[in-house]
Order: sequence, then C-alpha cells, then structure tokens
Amino acid sequence: MLLTPRELDAYIGRELDEDSVSADVTTSALIPPHLQARASLVPQEPGILAGLDVASAVFQRINPDLVFAKKLLDGDRVEGGEAIATISGAMTSILTAERTALNFLQRMSGIATLTDQYVKAIDGTTASIVDTRKTVPGLRLLDKYAVSIGGGRNHRMNLTDGVLIKDNHLAALAGEGVSLGQAIKRARARAPHTVKIEVEVESIEAALAASAAGADIVMLDNMSPEDMRTAVDQIAANCIVEASGGITLDNVAAIARSGVDIISIGALTHSPQALDISLEYETRNA
Amino acid sequence: MLLTPRELDAYIGRELDEDSVSADVTTSALIPPHLQARASLVPQEPGILAGLDVASAVFQRINPDLVFAKKLLDGDRVEGGEAIATISGAMTSILTAERTALNFLQRMSGIATLTDQYVKAIDGTTASIVDTRKTVPGLRLLDKYAVSIGGGRNHRMNLTDGVLIKDNHLAALAGEGVSLGQAIKRARARAPHTVKIEVEVESIEAALAASAAGADIVMLDNMSPEDMRTAVDQIAANCIVEASGGITLDNVAAIARSGVDIISIGALTHSPQALDISLEYETRNA
Amino acid sequence: MLLTPRELDAYIGRELDEDSVSADVTTSALIPPHLQARASLVPQEPGILAGLDVASAVFQRINPDLVFAKKLLDGDRVEGGEAIATISGAMTSILTAERTALNFLQRMSGIATLTDQYVKAIDGTTASIVDTRKTVPGLRLLDKYAVSIGGGRNHRMNLTDGVLIKDNHLAALAGEGVSLGQAIKRARARAPHTVKIEVEVESIEAALAASAAGADIVMLDNMSPEDMRTAVDQIAANCIVEASGGITLDNVAAIARSGVDIISIGALTHSPQALDISLEYETRNA
Amino acid sequence: MLLTPRELDAYIGRELDEDSVSADVTTSALIPPHLQARASLVPQEPGILAGLDVASAVFQRINPDLVFAKKLLDGDRVEGGEAIATISGAMTSILTAERTALNFLQRMSGIATLTDQYVKAIDGTTASIVDTRKTVPGLRLLDKYAVSIGGGRNHRMNLTDGVLIKDNHLAALAGEGVSLGQAIKRARARAPHTVKIEVEVESIEAALAASAAGADIVMLDNMSPEDMRTAVDQIAANCIVEASGGITLDNVAAIARSGVDIISIGALTHSPQALDISLEYETRNA
Amino acid sequence: MLLTPRELDAYIGRELDEDSVSADVTTSALIPPHLQARASLVPQEPGILAGLDVASAVFQRINPDLVFAKKLLDGDRVEGGEAIATISGAMTSILTAERTALNFLQRMSGIATLTDQYVKAIDGTTASIVDTRKTVPGLRLLDKYAVSIGGGRNHRMNLTDGVLIKDNHLAALAGEGVSLGQAIKRARARAPHTVKIEVEVESIEAALAASAAGADIVMLDNMSPEDMRTAVDQIAANCIVEASGGITLDNVAAIARSGVDIISIGALTHSPQALDISLEYETRNA
Amino acid sequence: MLLTPRELDAYIGRELDEDSVSADVTTSALIPPHLQARASLVPQEPGILAGLDVASAVFQRINPDLVFAKKLLDGDRVEGGEAIATISGAMTSILTAERTALNFLQRMSGIATLTDQYVKAIDGTTASIVDTRKTVPGLRLLDKYAVSIGGGRNHRMNLTDGVLIKDNHLAALAGEGVSLGQAIKRARARAPHTVKIEVEVESIEAALAASAAGADIVMLDNMSPEDMRTAVDQIAANCIVEASGGITLDNVAAIARSGVDIISIGALTHSPQALDISLEYETRNA
Repeated sequence: MLLTPRELDAYIGRELDEDSVSADVTTSALIPPHLQARASLVPQEPGILAGLDVASAVFQRINPDLVFAKKLLDGDRVEGGEAIATISGAMTSILTAERTALNFLQRMSGIATLTDQYVKAIDGTTASIVDTRKTVPGLRLLDKYAVSIGGGRNHRMNLTDGVLIKDNHLAALAGEGVSLGQAIKRARARAPHTVKIEVEVESIEAALAASAAGADIVMLDNMSPEDMRTAVDQIAANCIVEASGGITLDNVAAIARSGVDIISIGALTHSPQALDISLEYETRNA
Repeated sequence: MLLTPRELDAYIGRELDEDSVSADVTTSALIPPHLQARASLVPQEPGILAGLDVASAVFQRINPDLVFAKKLLDGDRVEGGEAIATISGAMTSILTAERTALNFLQRMSGIATLTDQYVKAIDGTTASIVDTRKTVPGLRLLDKYAVSIGGGRNHRMNLTDGVLIKDNHLAALAGEGVSLGQAIKRARARAPHTVKIEVEVESIEAALAASAAGADIVMLDNMSPEDMRTAVDQIAANCIVEASGGITLDNVAAIARSGVDIISIGALTHSPQALDISLEYETRNA
Repeated sequence: MLLTPRELDAYIGRELDEDSVSADVTTSALIPPHLQARASLVPQEPGILAGLDVASAVFQRINPDLVFAKKLLDGDRVEGGEAIATISGAMTSILTAERTALNFLQRMSGIATLTDQYVKAIDGTTASIVDTRKTVPGLRLLDKYAVSIGGGRNHRMNLTDGVLIKDNHLAALAGEGVSLGQAIKRARARAPHTVKIEVEVESIEAALAASAAGADIVMLDNMSPEDMRTAVDQIAANCIVEASGGITLDNVAAIARSGVDIISIGALTHSPQALDISLEYETRNA
Repeated sequence: MLLTPRELDAYIGRELDEDSVSADVTTSALIPPHLQARASLVPQEPGILAGLDVASAVFQRINPDLVFAKKLLDGDRVEGGEAIATISGAMTSILTAERTALNFLQRMSGIATLTDQYVKAIDGTTASIVDTRKTVPGLRLLDKYAVSIGGGRNHRMNLTDGVLIKDNHLAALAGEGVSLGQAIKRARARAPHTVKIEVEVESIEAALAASAAGADIVMLDNMSPEDMRTAVDQIAANCIVEASGGITLDNVAAIARSGVDIISIGALTHSPQALDISLEYETRNA
Repeated sequence: MLLTPRELDAYIGRELDEDSVSADVTTSALIPPHLQARASLVPQEPGILAGLDVASAVFQRINPDLVFAKKLLDGDRVEGGEAIATISGAMTSILTAERTALNFLQRMSGIATLTDQYVKAIDGTTASIVDTRKTVPGLRLLDKYAVSIGGGRNHRMNLTDGVLIKDNHLAALAGEGVSLGQAIKRARARAPHTVKIEVEVESIEAALAASAAGADIVMLDNMSPEDMRTAVDQIAANCIVEASGGITLDNVAAIARSGVDIISIGALTHSPQALDISLEYETRNA
Repeated sequence: MLLTPRELDAYIGRELDEDSVSADVTTSALIPPHLQARASLVPQEPGILAGLDVASAVFQRINPDLVFAKKLLDGDRVEGGEAIATISGAMTSILTAERTALNFLQRMSGIATLTDQYVKAIDGTTASIVDTRKTVPGLRLLDKYAVSIGGGRNHRMNLTDGVLIKDNHLAALAGEGVSLGQAIKRARARAPHTVKIEVEVESIEAALAASAAGADIVMLDNMSPEDMRTAVDQIAANCIVEASGGITLDNVAAIARSGVDIISIGALTHSPQALDISLEYETRNA
C-alpha cells in the first residue's frame, strides 16, 4: 500500500483541523520560538510499529523544517523503552504536533500489534489472518495498511472490488424463488467479470452447494472447527475457504488447524487497543 | 452537542466514499430494485446506545426515501436482542448502507458503554469521568459526543480552548530559568483571558505550587490515591483537581474516593470495544 | 450503479463552478424573473439515452423549484426529434443550467450510443463488450455507468479491484529472473485473496503459460482472430478469455466469433462522439 | 493560460482518487521497491502534443522523486514513434501513475490535434478557430488550454465573462414585446460595462439589426457561406463576425473564405479522438 | 446575481466551522431544547439591507425547522428600529446561529449602504458607481452582490473576464519597445475576442492615445475633474470612460459631473462599515 | 498564532479561485514569459504591518520560483513610502498574484493599525484591547491574528471555548424561573470544567450578582465609565472585568481608566479601513 503525499494530507489535515493547531494557546503563551528541542518517540509496552511515515508527515505539515529521523521501521517489533524515532527542531512545533502524531501512531501500532498476536497464534498452519470492512469511519486505508504491517492480509477494500453474498441476500432471493446456486450464477452473469464471488454459509451443506455452483470463495460463518474441517476436506480443491465470526485469540489456532485458507477478524480494526507510546523531550537553546 | 446536517454530511461522506457505495457489485447484481425490506438494528450484547442519528443519516444519504424509525434513543441501556430501530424501504439501499451505518453505531455505542462502566464504578462519589484529546483521527466530535452520552463530560476539544501546561513545557521553561509559578503567570498574561490554565503535576509539592500560583485546574498525573487525597485536602478549595494517568476500571473507584473533581481517561476513546450490533432483515415485494 | 445525491453533488458542483452560474450576465440582464418557461430536451440524431438523472439534478441544483419530467429513461433508444424530458419553471434558471445539463447528457449518451453500436455488432455471439480505465479524468463513474446503459459491462474500476499483469510488469520481472508463471504465483500469494489475477499476453504460447499457471483471466492483446480462436480452444475451460487492442466496429464481429468471453475497448470512453441534443423552449408569463 | 500547482492538484487529485492509486494491488504484489526504471512517452500516431506539464505533475504527485524530462514541448508536432519525454525512478511509482498521466495527455493532445486540423484547413484566411463551452464536465480549463495549444483561440470561459443573446433569449423577450434591438440596449444598460455583447442570429436581416443596435459580436448560426459573406460585407466594419453551427473539416474552409473573423466549433472539446500515446519501459536494478 | 443552494453552502459552511457551532457550550449548558422563541432582526441605524437570503440560509443550515419570515427585502432602505425579519423555532438553534447570520448581514448591508451613499452623491449625473476586485478574500461574490443591491454596478469579476492594461504592464512593455497603442493591438490579437480591452491612463495625452488605438474602456486614474472633462470631451464618443483613484464622498459629485460614464471605488468593498443590526428575542415554552 | 502551510493553502486557494488566476487574459496576452521583474510592496500611509507571510505565500502559490524578501516584519510600524518587501522573478507571475496578495495584506494591516490606535489610546492603563467574534466570514483566524499583531489580545475563537451568558440567555431562563445566579451554577455543572464562565450584565447590581455567583468574567455592557468604576471596585478581586459596547477611540481611554481588565471592540474586525499599500515594479530582461 502506498501512502502518497496527497493521501497523507487528507488524513492529517482533518486531524490538524480537529485539534485547532493554528492556535495552540499553551505553546504560544509559554514557549519561546527560539527554543530548539529533540524529542524521541518511545513505546511504553511491547508491540509492532505501524504508522511512522504518518507520524513523520504530521510533524512536517506543522513545520517543514522539523527533522524526523527513524530509528526503526514499520513492522519492527519493540519491547518498550527504546527510541523509535527522533524529532528535532523548534520546540513549539513539536509540542503542537505531538498529540496528532501520537493519535495516528498509537492506533496504527495497536492494530499491527493485535494482528501480530493472531498471526503468531496460528504459526505453523497455512492459514492467513485478514481484515474486514469493519474499520473506523474515515481511516479504512490506514487501518488496512496497519493490518498488513502486522502480518495480516487485506480483504475487500470496499463494496466495489468483490461480490460477497451474505445470508441477507440469500434470504431475500429465496423469497423470490432464487436458490443459492442460482444466486451465484446470477452474480457471475451480471457482476464485472473481474471480481470474485464469495458466499457466506452457515452449514456444511450450504458450503458444498456454494462450491458446486462455482463460488470463488466460501466463507464459513460461525461454524465449529470440526465442521470447518469437514467442509474444507470437500471443497478446498475448488475454492478458497474462509472462516469468519466469533474468532478470538483463544480459538483461532483450532480454526486454523481445520485447514481453512483465510481467517477474517473484524476486531483487528473495530476494537484494537492503542499501543502506549510517549514523546520524550530534550531541550536546548538555538 | 449539536449534529448539524452539514457535520453529518462530512463525517458520513468520507465513509461512503471509502466504501465505494456507488458501485456495490453484490447488491446491483443480485437484488431486484423493486424488493422492499424492513430491517432492525439489534444489539447482541448489553451496553449504552450512541449514534442513532448518525446511523439514520447514513441510510438517508444513500436513499432519502428510506424510513428510519427509532425504538430507543441515544443513552438508552440495552440488554441485547431488542430492536433499537427499524429501517424500511428499498432493500438494495439498506444493504448498501448497512456496513457504514454499523461502523459508526458500533464504535459510538462502544465508547458510551465503556464510559458508562467507569461512571458506574465511581457511583456515590462526587467525581466526574471525562475524556481527553486521545480520539481517533477524524472523529473527535463523534467520540466526545459518545462520551457525553455514556454519562461522561468533555475535556478540551482542541489546543485552542484551554491552556494545559505539561511536564515537557515545564522542563523546557526550567531550562530557561522559569519556575512553575512563573510559567503560570506567563500563561495568564499572554493567553486569552477567556481560557483556564491547567497544570499537570506529579507530586504533592508541585500541586501546592501550582495552586498557590493560581492554576485554575491542577492535574495529578499518575499519583497514588493517598497522595491524591493529600493534595485534594490542601488545594481543592482553590482549584479544580483532576486525576489522570494509569486509570483502570479496577482503580477508578479508589481514585474517585480521594476527592478529586475530575478523572480523565484516554482509553474511553483510544481503545473502546465496538458494541456488537446486527442488522436483521425481513423482505417483501413492493 | 447507484448515483447518490452526494455523488451527483460532487460531479455537478464542479461543472457549475466552471461555468460561473452564479453570475450569468446574459440572463440576469435580459430575462425577467417572473417569466415561466417549459423546455424540452430533444435529441437531433439517433442514439441511446444516458444521464437523464444527472441532467435532472443539474436543473434542481440551480433551482430546486424546477420540475423535470422524464418522457423516456436511460437506455431508451431515440430516433431524434422526440422530447425525452421537459423542464418547467423560472426561465432564468433553465437558461443558466442548460449548458451544464447538456454537457453531461450529451457525453453520457454518446458513450451509451457507441457502446450500443459495438454490442449490436457482435449480436449472436457469446462475447460481452466491456470498458477500460481509459476514462476522462474526473468522470470515471459516469463514463462506466454510460457504458452499462449502452449494454456493455464494466472492467476494473481502479487499480485496487483486480490484478492485471501487463507486458511491462513481465519485462521487469524477467529482468529479475521471474517467469510469467512465477509472477502469477507471486501475485496469488501476495495480493488480496479477493481479487482475480489477469494476465496480458501477446502470443498463443504465453496464453497457454498463463492459463497453466492459474490466471483467472487471460487478455489476448492485439492478436488475430485466428490466433484468438486457437487460444480460446485451449484455455477457455480454465479461465476467462479477454480480447483487447486495436478493436474497431469493423473487426469486432470477427473477434467475437473467435469465442472470447470479453472484448474490452478503450475508445468507448476515451473517444466517444457527443450525442447531439438540444433544449427547446416555450415561454409564458407567470 | 497558467497551470498553477494548486490547479494541477485539483485536476490530478480527482483522477488519482478515481484510480485508487494508494492500493495498486498489481504493482505492490509483483514489483520490488528497489527496481528502477526509465520509461518513455511515445505517440503512436501523428498529432500535436498538449498536456506534458499535467503528465509530469501526475508522476510527481505519485512520487516526488521521479524525474520527468521533456524531449518536446506542448504545441510540438509529432509523427509517431519518437520519445516525447522520459520518466526515471522507482518502477512501482511509474507503473501506478501511468494510466492517470496518459488519460490527461491523450485527451489534451487529441483536442490540440483536432484543433490543428481545423486551423490548417483555413490556412490563408483571416479567420480564427475558437472553442465553446461544450467542454467535458470538470475539465474546462484543460480543454480550453489544449485548444490554444492547437492554434485555436478561446471563446467565453463561462457565463460571467460575456453576454451571449441566443434565440431562446430573443424568443422569450419577443413574448414580452422586446425586440432584438431593445434586447441589446437592455443588456448594455444592465450588464457590467466590462463585458461584450454578442448576439446569435439566423438570418442576414437579424445580423443587420444586431449590428445596427450595437452588438459587439454577431454570431451567424448555421448560415450558408454565401449568406455569411453577404452579412460580413455589411456588418464587419462595425462588429466581430462569428460563424457557428454545423461546421466540419469539410466545410470550414468555405466558411472561412466568407470573411468571418471567428469560427467556433463545439466538437473541438465535446468529441475529440484521444491521441494514441504509449509508455515504454526499460528497467534496471538500483 | 444568483445565490444557489450550493454557493450558499460553501459560504456559510466555512463560517459555521469557524464558529464551532456543533459545540456551543453556552447554549447546550443553559437552554432547554423544548424552549421556543421568536426573534427579530432589527437594524440600529439607517441603511440599505443586503444579505437577507444569506442570513435565512444560515438559520436553516443550523436547523431546517427554523422559520425565517422576511418583513423587508434586499435593497430596502431602513431607518433603524424596525424588524426586517423574524426567526421562529427552537431557541437553542437561533442562539447558535445568531453571530454567523449577523456577520454576513452586517457586512453586506454595510457595503450596500456605502454604495448607496455614493450613488446618491452623484444623483442627476449619467455616471454609474462600480466596484473593483479589492474585495475581502473569499467573499467576492457576496461583496459584489451587495454593491449591486446598493445601486452600484459590477466591474470585472476576476482576471479572466476582461483585459485591463495598467501602468505596470505599460512600463514593462515600454522596456520592450512596445508603445501603448501597440499594446492595445497586441491584446486585441491575443486575448479572447469576447473580452473588452481597458487601459489605465494618467494623462490626457495617454487617454487620447488609448482611444485612438481602439481601447474599449479608458480608465482615468487620479486625474482632476477638469482633466477628466477634457478627456471625456475628446474620447467619449469612441469608448467608455471610467474614473478611478482617490475618490471619496466629497469629490465624487465633481468627478461625475465631468461626464465620465463609470466611477470605480475600491473602498466600497475593502473598507465598508458594518451596518449595526441586532437580534431581539421573545421566548415561550413549546 | 501559527499559520501552517495547510492553513495558508485554504485561505489563499479560495481567493485565487475567485480571481481566476489561471486565465489572466491581460498578462498572458501582453507580457512575455521571459520578462523578469522586481517589485516592492510600499505602504502609502502610516500603519502597522500584518500579513507579510500570507502575501509571501500568495506569490509562491502562483509560482514557487518567485523570491519574496522581507524588509520588515509583521508588527512593524511604517510611515508610508518605504519598501516592506520585494518580490523577484517572472513578471507574469507577479502581476497575476498582485491583487490577491494585496487584498490580504491591506485588510490585515488595516486591522492591526486600528488595533494599535486603540492600544495607544489606553497607554498607561492596565486594560487590554481584545477582539470579538464579529469577524468577516471565512477569515476569523487571520482577523484575530492581525489583532494580536496590532497589540491586542484575543477573546473566544468560537462557541466552544468559553461560556458567555448574554441577556438573551438570561431572559429565556428568567421565563423558566431561573435566576442569574442559578444560570451560572447550571453552566458550571454542565459545561466542560475546562471553560470559563462569562456573564454579560447591564447594571451594577447584575455585576455584583454575577460575581457573587462565581462568574469568571463579568462583561459590563454599555455602561458609563463611572458605573464601570463602581463595579470594578466591588468585583475585580474575584473576577476579570470586561467592558464592551459602544466603545470608540474617543471614549476608550475613559473606559480604560475605570479599571476594567479587558475592553472588547467588534469594530476592530467588522469595520477596519484597509491600509493603502501598492506594488511598484522595476522590470528587466532575463
């Protein structure tokens, strides 16, 4: 994923507006403009870093003369206590930018860290951890980037880049006399030929039906690992098998061992814990 | 807090763009435009509702003809399983809007629910639970609204509406030969006369110094409940006393009993768990 | 495809700005505000209509009191000379909106008409006509909508919703010692599991290699109908076959008869002729 | 015409958004970030170049480190096959930017090329080729710039910078008892003194009336070259004479020889053929 | 001039953002939502009203249920003390919108009032009062609308809709060996045929030269009324004559009597006094 | 106050759009691109400079190669006639940017100059001059910055950063049976603990009541200097005292001598006179 200057501007600009950085009454009242500082970003707990380029861009949009020097990179594992980057320049600018930079960095690192925990929990299996569209409004790209940094892979970006037939679609179509198999054929005929067709199922029977009708991906929703294994045995040769629903760090390994290809987890982006990161200052006169 | 049509447009528009709602390939391939549906928003776990007007606005921005009927209101406590609102109209529109509406509603209700847990934990004390600026980038107003719905109060909205002198400011000023008391006086002289001056302290001595120098609010950072009580006894007549740092559901009651006025908690907005809410459909032909 | 109020606002707003509709010096100098008019949109040549909702929205964004009554719908075939819609209300508003509405309607109908010509040219075959990403900057959604109205289908919306490995990618990878087959495997491993993998090839051999390596779609670029038929015979059981490059109304039927599934044509959107449509007025006093 | 950084940002940003350049799944899956490339823009057919600065800006907005070196300039005539510019730097960035850059460059060069054909067709006369407001929504400035590069001149930019009284205005005013001459006087009295007054006429008689009433410009709409000559002979001393309506490469020379000053042609911008231009790569390791 | 919903949104939205209307801490803390009020806009001094539709739109963007009833119209003369409009509905909404609505209405009425003073000062002459491009950044359209409401006319809207050759252009061209007359011919040849050519001169000689060379408008800059009359006598038959520079309410009548057609005054928009207008409330329970 | 690149972009971009700088028909028709110039900003009357960074940014957004060299700084006092900055580079760019740069600089310097007059008028007293929210729509930040440059201080930025209870709030609450003292207590309980509570009063009695009820700031509205002194004597030990309403350069000294802390003046920003500043050119060939 590519974070262009323009993309960064849009994400960061909204947050700078929200924080009214143009009128930081504390800094402008107290800190002399000549004061130079060097500050270090220091995590206070173990985790995986994500968002250093966003944090860097925040400082530079407040003041292009600030120098942001990375000590570590996105994806690096930290223990807590080590400096991950330093920012040098006018102390007033660093103070004004601090909260905005940390709000991005802590959330993104929290997502990467949570993803990493799931990835490690299924170590030794062939399954992949993937995200969902359950992202925080306005931050989808950054949320999904953080998942990838944590070792996960990305599911659909949006409603355009894949067909996903859910229980609600099937129920509606059933009312019209359209079966699961017919629904898949209808999607194949009408959706762009470039998108895959995924079907959400809640039983082994439905999984078989979906696979038989040519689904590219079959999502096993809230099924037991045992049922998942049964389904995998019968359909994995013909389609990608995805597990979803009710997945936790406690049960993810059992699910992965069922042989599914993909395990999608909404909590990666809807409920991560922010990684605790501080900005620690040294000051000196210019 | 007032959610104007314009504010809602900005928040919702970004998320609709992210989800590419204009080209929902699943719905357009499968669901006949004539199909009418009624769907209910149903929480799957206990909590406090927040964000119903935002959810309603999402549906109406996808299709102004959808009818959103509230059964409950923001601030209402749910047990899980009850319908909180129904949406009626073209099934295609409801399906396209579903994820966006839920992304808002689940986050906001998650924040309200977490806030409510803290508020109940300090029941019987005179302290108030408040938020911080540790919000998710781009959602500050909604995050803070959700805190208020959960029974909390709001701290500064941004860098403009209050002076908050932190350890980093004091360290920088100390290097210039400026004491804590002098810093407060400098802020009083230079900041707008309309803003309060808050000082973050880490010791009883510093708390006394801040109060003596005329701080409007003294923030006790990461102090023990015992030290907080000592500080409160000596300064509470002259200023508002705020506790901050390292506060959890386990220790918040002890902190509240120290007599502080305000307990500010970043986790309310930087690490809430989304409240699990589903959209359940009935369909019928028009 | 769904044209939400918000999407329409963005498309139309830019054009209203470009035309400085707030200060139409001709209309404001000449036409009395009380003057009421009814005007009809009348095509001057045969074609397929597309964009009536956009045209309607233009008039209503200039003046919400204008009444736009459709006589025909998007996708309808016109001969020229018949009224396709009438607009009633303040003549000043209709005059100011006219050029903007026509600029959208004429381009969109031009695309639909050109698409229809290709669709009719391959009548009786199993191939579909599809568009490309060669759209006019800023109008991709409308351009692709117009293609669908003309009877075509849509290829990728953007760089996110499908892997398309072109000659340049393969050349670069060849320099790294990566074969076509290895490239496809690499894409399978690293791209989201939700996207299809398409490969552009220029020979029968490469087509076979791509199919053997598991490409979901093989694009035959600038090949003769005979070579296409040879390729189709060998790979069509395993993948979707797409023809592209140098396709005209003269050769499209031959290409379609080769058995390809998909024929993609950039000219549909990069070089359509606007359909000639006029706005004809009757006026009367209020 | 001046293309400021800000103007370029707006035009280019919309197109980068449309193409979701932040998540180019092909490039990010396949191409190593260290791979350097040099690519050349090469037209595949004869024409006039326009839009090189826009294309350059596209590459630099994707990656400011890319180097865009022009070999030719806007307005230069190409035969096809020659390199017009090279782009050097990270291959990933060049691949991601390619389609967006070409979409601008091909359209703008197509407009310039078509304009040039009309300009050459009237070589030896004193007439000028000019554009209209029939531009593609959202691209007026670029469309009109391309016309000027092709040797044409620009008509009104928008509704503000000139009065143009058309048949519909006159019909409405006739219903109010206002003659053509009175309409011109009314416009003179009420419109800003800084704008010219142009009148569209369909007969020699109306042309004479418009000229007599002081029109600055008289537009002869859909008249024969013979009638145009008659009108020119009588009014050209007093006003600018413009021909419009039904003008093609076949009849434009005859029209120009009638002595009109200005020939305005909507097709220059509503129906140009994109100039076929390719991006050809060399790659190498960094 | 037309104030479309979209134009109003842009102007008003910026100001609502600036005033953080979403979090009016006073109103939300104090005023019960059920409280209904009726408030009247009442000028406190004589003047000309302008901006009532803008004020109305402010209230409705805060709360679409507010009812804004005009008692007077833009352009009406007030003495002070009379109600010009009433707003009815939720008191909370009226209070929140008040300052934004007044900021627009007071500035626009101030401009209209100042314009009216100049217009009355030249009563009985044939000259017109016009504005300039010396408007407040971001408000050009509203500023120029207010001038027209005050009885003035509008000069160029922007750099596109007219050629205005100033002393600096002429000095630069003189350095290139280009005379005033040649400059006018160059502009005629290169600028769009639709725009007029105006020349700023500082002497009678230059005025004659400009007129002789075919200038459409000659601007007499900072000349005495006597010199203006001399210039008018010699050139007014061939061009529009505009006076500019150093014009005040004291000398405008003398200037107008010199026979100039147009008197342009920057102070109308760069230095108007806001008209004092209050919002007076009655309240009642719902 | 901090003017970030982003803030400047937003302010300046609107004005560049308004002035259609992309198509400056005068400059593009007349001035050769090779022509280099140096121009000086020269005030034509005495005053205080404000806005040099904004003016500089305007030139650089038109053409990043222009060099803007400051001779003086914001806050410097000028007599008129001296160069305050020079701009060097392409003459075409300087000419196109001129009006936009001056529109900002003249307004901001006008505000600073007017503020300075008030500040000097109360020299020797302990009062401060402050602004209000009566700013020009869209320019609040720049208006308030200019006040601070002129020696004033800033009142509330917006409705969020302070409670200000006005007569209308009190009247509404009186109808509900809520007294002034109760209103203050209600605000204290419900508004964020971080904001101050200010009360507007029109009598000595009300001032005493407000102070007794704990108002942080008491605003004496339209009271005589004698009454203000009486109020100050009784309440100044407990709260900040602000004078407001009907304040002019004639009476401000008497008001300041009453002992009030703060004098707020709407006219600073709603009715300043633009400072007359010219751009004077030298040209030379490159």
